[in-house]
Amino acid sequence: MNTKVKSLIILYTGTGKGKTTAALGAAVRSIGQGGRVCICQFIKSNDKTGEFLFFDKFTKQVDIYVLGKGFVRPKTDKNSLEKHCQAARKGLKFLREKLVSEKYQLVIADELLDAYNMGFIDKSELIEITDILPSGTHIIITGRSAPQELLDRAHTVTQMNEIKHHYNMGILAQKGIEF
Amino acid sequence: MNTKVKSLIILYTGTGKGKTTAALGAAVRSIGQGGRVCICQFIKSNDKTGEFLFFDKFTKQVDIYVLGKGFVRPKTDKNSLEKHCQAARKGLKFLREKLVSEKYQLVIADELLDAYNMGFIDKSELIEITDILPSGTHIIITGRSAPQELLDRAHTVTQMNEIKHHYNMGILAQKGIEF
Repeated sequence: MNTKVKSLIILYTGTGKGKTTAALGAAVRSIGQGGRVCICQFIKSNDKTGEFLFFDKFTKQVDIYVLGKGFVRPKTDKNSLEKHCQAARKGLKFLREKLVSEKYQLVIADELLDAYNMGFIDKSELIEITDILPSGTHIIITGRSAPQELLDRAHTVTQMNEIKHHYNMGILAQKGIEF
Repeated sequence: MNTKVKSLIILYTGTGKGKTTAALGAAVRSIGQGGRVCICQFIKSNDKTGEFLFFDKFTKQVDIYVLGKGFVRPKTDKNSLEKHCQAARKGLKFLREKLVSEKYQLVIADELLDAYNMGFIDKSELIEITDILPSGTHIIITGRSAPQELLDRAHTVTQMNEIKHHYNMGILAQKGIEF
């Protein structure tokens, strides 16, 4: 059996380190093979990350956008939460435009699942993304967990489980590793 | 608590897709922050992968080496197995030289754990790598599974579990995704 498919839906989920990094690695593979890649980072607000600095500087094949307002802390007040929510909704609209543009071989919706899990994006909107995926564009979606309907639609799902993390030894986030 | 550490040992293990890709993404982060990266790919023999083509072409900050003889099939005959073993042993020597050179902020030993699991490399040799790691060099080691002694020494371990893979739907490896 050799099923031809023009558009893969790939999910990187779980609590472990490696979801965003795996998506970035996939971007490297795609551009190495001549593709164009669009990276939309939800939740995140840092444009001084290694990925941003590198992709922005070194290659015209990657368009990278930081669309969030930063890590959403527990007990965030209602006003701040509203700002996060607005950013996510604006980001979703932007992502949809990028997807239907048919310009890209790979689109990465980084932490989109977290925006969904925080209630900023509806399940129907999440699923709809897989409906509008043009032929020839793969999508990678990351975040802690995905609803069953999305898991059902995905071709590849890897759950990244944290066995151990250096945070828990009191080692802070390292430049060039975490960001 | 803020423990300072100059050299992180990071393991990406498990059966799921994303181990090598996560290591490649870490390379992007490191070079984006101005680092130098060395990627040693064990077992693998393909130098037409997206990562090879991209890193080789676009940046002088990454040295990437393909050191294996290709996927080791079950029931490989003794002669071929010996060739794989020799390549892994030569690769290990090369990796050690690169590590102690102190030239790199990040060294990636891709599929080294598979070379260990196939018996090409001893446990003591695997552990020794963490002993010779110079201050200022992080290492990422990938492969299906790691011995307990290495897990104990690692700062960060993510196990990538395959929930679903498009191979199992009869979809072949995709250029720009798997390689």
